[in-house]
Amino acid sequence: MTIEELRIRIDELDRQLVALLSERARAAQMIGHLKAATSLPVYEPNREKIIYANVRAANKGPLPDIELTHIYERIIDVMRALQRNELASQRHAQAAEAEGGSQGHAAGESSPETGKRS
Amino acid sequence: MTIEELRIRIDELDRQLVALLSERARAAQMIGHLKAATSLPVYEPNREKIIYANVRAANKGPLPDIELTHIYERIIDVMRALQRNELASQRHAQAAEAEGGSQGHAAGESSPETGKRS
Repeated sequence: MTIEELRIRIDELDRQLVALLSERARAAQMIGHLKAATSLPVYEPNREKIIYANVRAANKGPLPDIELTHIYERIIDVMRALQRNELASQRHAQAAEAEGGSQGHAAGESSPETGKRS
Repeated sequence: MTIEELRIRIDELDRQLVALLSERARAAQMIGHLKAATSLPVYEPNREKIIYANVRAANKGPLPDIELTHIYERIIDVMRALQRNELASQRHAQAAEAEGGSQGHAAGESSPETGKRS
């Protein structure tokens, strides 16, 4: 295989990666939506441990686990931000709804930010 | 779908992502191998522009382009390091070969570990 052929293959793999990352993002968004109803925090360290363990177990090389972990740290950061947005817009909508007839009620409902920030 | 079901789906997607990232890494490694013969540099800004353009063109959301770019910056960093290792071990092998039968030939044949490390 030439460099040119390998690059065509890489571009193809990147399009597949984007599709998978997008599907993963949609699932994270839906979890954010469900968390708004249950008041679960965005940052759940135990869940993240499971994600990293799953990723390492699936790794057959050639990337060392540590490098794959570096990529996943970034993926998880981005997904967390997305989930936080989803949660915020959800709560904003709920607050607006609760405001209904009365006013100034929404402010009391806002809870402190519990998510981890990088 | 419950949070639990969505997490099962995410774990499945992560295993597929690891498989694609590994295949991408193998292709990058092969390019590193070919670059050693042509003395092309590891860092090629024009090629990286093409990668980012391809990724943005493939993006249909929900991740904003900027967030996807953040993930890709990390992916490219990791791939570049892998390619650099491949190139180094290749050149190391070539240098050892050039040294010829003189001495230390056996030692020169061992290449640095490029496989999975945990």
